[in-house]
Amino acid sequence: MSGLISENSIIRLLRDRYGVNGPLIKEGIGDDAAVIRTGKAEEYLLITTDMLLEGIDFRREWITPRCLGCKSIAVNLSDLAAMGARPLFFTVSLAVPADISKRWILDFYDGLTDPRFAGRARLIGGDFSRAEAGIAISITALGESVNRKVLYRKGGRAGDLLYVTGTLGQSAAGLRLLESGCIHPKSRAQKEAIRVHQSPEARWKAGMWLAQSGLVRCMMDLSDGLSTDLPRLCAASGVGAEVRVADLPVFRGSRLWGCNPDEMALNGGEDFELLFSVPKSKGKILEEKYPAGFPKITKIGTMTRDIGKMWLLEPGNNRRPLVERGYDHFSR
Amino acid sequence: MSGLISENSIIRLLRDRYGVNGPLIKEGIGDDAAVIRTGKAEEYLLITTDMLLEGIDFRREWITPRCLGCKSIAVNLSDLAAMGARPLFFTVSLAVPADISKRWILDFYDGLTDPRFAGRARLIGGDFSRAEAGIAISITALGESVNRKVLYRKGGRAGDLLYVTGTLGQSAAGLRLLESGCIHPKSRAQKEAIRVHQSPEARWKAGMWLAQSGLVRCMMDLSDGLSTDLPRLCAASGVGAEVRVADLPVFRGSRLWGCNPDEMALNGGEDFELLFSVPKSKGKILEEKYPAGFPKITKIGTMTRDIGKMWLLEPGNNRRPLVERGYDHFSR
Repeated sequence: MSGLISENSIIRLLRDRYGVNGPLIKEGIGDDAAVIRTGKAEEYLLITTDMLLEGIDFRREWITPRCLGCKSIAVNLSDLAAMGARPLFFTVSLAVPADISKRWILDFYDGLTDPRFAGRARLIGGDFSRAEAGIAISITALGESVNRKVLYRKGGRAGDLLYVTGTLGQSAAGLRLLESGCIHPKSRAQKEAIRVHQSPEARWKAGMWLAQSGLVRCMMDLSDGLSTDLPRLCAASGVGAEVRVADLPVFRGSRLWGCNPDEMALNGGEDFELLFSVPKSKGKILEEKYPAGFPKITKIGTMTRDIGKMWLLEPGNNRRPLVERGYDHFSR
Repeated sequence: MSGLISENSIIRLLRDRYGVNGPLIKEGIGDDAAVIRTGKAEEYLLITTDMLLEGIDFRREWITPRCLGCKSIAVNLSDLAAMGARPLFFTVSLAVPADISKRWILDFYDGLTDPRFAGRARLIGGDFSRAEAGIAISITALGESVNRKVLYRKGGRAGDLLYVTGTLGQSAAGLRLLESGCIHPKSRAQKEAIRVHQSPEARWKAGMWLAQSGLVRCMMDLSDGLSTDLPRLCAASGVGAEVRVADLPVFRGSRLWGCNPDEMALNGGEDFELLFSVPKSKGKILEEKYPAGFPKITKIGTMTRDIGKMWLLEPGNNRRPLVERGYDHFSR
């Protein structure tokens, strides 16, 4: 047993050791959310949980309590979105150091329950306690399937087209600004990048639509960056992938503060966009039927037969390996 | 708005602000677990969540990772026990500092999934990440009602008899030993107290039986000490209470290391026993029918008409107010 720890390796280990699927557990450890059945319910219940720690996942100086609340619930609903589930309920555990005020706490809960971010999901309980060092937040969100249609990371096939929602690398560009000390942004691009970083919106409406469309084979949400998350989707589906760099929906504005938009789109984390595959023959239909009011979708590449092999296609048809440079809690 | 924070005051505030019961939420914020309905399920779904932080809720030197796992799941199943629910599933978020080994992590998960503590509840997912300062654990447990019979904190009436399961103050006496540097206990009483502190067993079998019996009016679990938890039960039920000190099932062994067993039973936390009320006319029937193999139950007092008034009855029929001296994260 190696002493080296990575998120992927620990989660694989836990899945091998404790992962049991059965009549009540349709999908356990390893996907964006667990999928279970209880009693004689007609729909599946989906559960996901995420912990956010001060100093690791956020800094108190860089985010208002309200935005922190919005972001905390969005992160969890994004996991439900990735499976196509309808968000229903959530619980939150909050631990705060002694210097946090009641005002701070209420602002946090106001953000958490803001319908723009929480949708119709209702806060139903939790735990409140003291922390010694930094703020600790843990949210568990519950959703249900619609017509039992759930999308998993598995299910993609060689030849499928790969799509993403929204823009990639914007949140990471916002974080870069905050890290450089720019807390009061001036330009529209700066404001937008920081807003997306501080209060992302989960794509659960798009996720539900995609699951119901019958056109999508597999799906996940992008939380650690495309270069880290795409291999996870491909591993679950038993395929490889090619991504066309010129087609990535990058955030060009970040050039203004010295970022490489391509690099941010590939390796910046916290996009909370959806990554999904569609059979080659269905791409056109999807693009036609996809509702206009939803966040845009962009075709970025294809799934291939070379299991686990990830390639970037660059202009002039140069090909270079896609290296995992996204977020891993244990590589920093 | 006062700057003073207590667990009770914050939870009251959150319940007033965000607590919405409705067709899908039978019981939201404020009880041991939330009680919800999903889809067309016949039974209620119960959800509870608890966060444990190193330095606040445990110390790494005082507990093995395996025991910490056992305790973490027991704390959550105890909340389900308090409602009479059958434990089904749980998720766990774990954040660890860089100096924690893979061995430690696996031992923790082994404890967490040990059937003696987790029963048939299955680990179905979670989150794994890095922590800066100490270990952070957050568990969410799901259970379901049996025949839709759920017990709440509300429902007790003046005249009801008060009962507890097991022994009170044993866990706190174990903690006292650890605090005094006794990490390798010698006497049987010492070993027992430390064992109960490090790996308590949730009373979910007794809780389910009590809910099914039809003899119990209200119930909760004792996590912060009787003197703090009893007022919560009484507040929810709109009653007062009298507790007969001589009847408390105290842990006498703790005298050996200088504890006052009565004081430990009243104010020591982490008993994870059940506190419940039974109509006066049903006490005898309960005591006769209660299964022999289960943790003992003891009648400790009665609910009274004096809303919010808590009294201790001492030998010679002296009466003194019961003062809340149990655990509050914000009073230490």
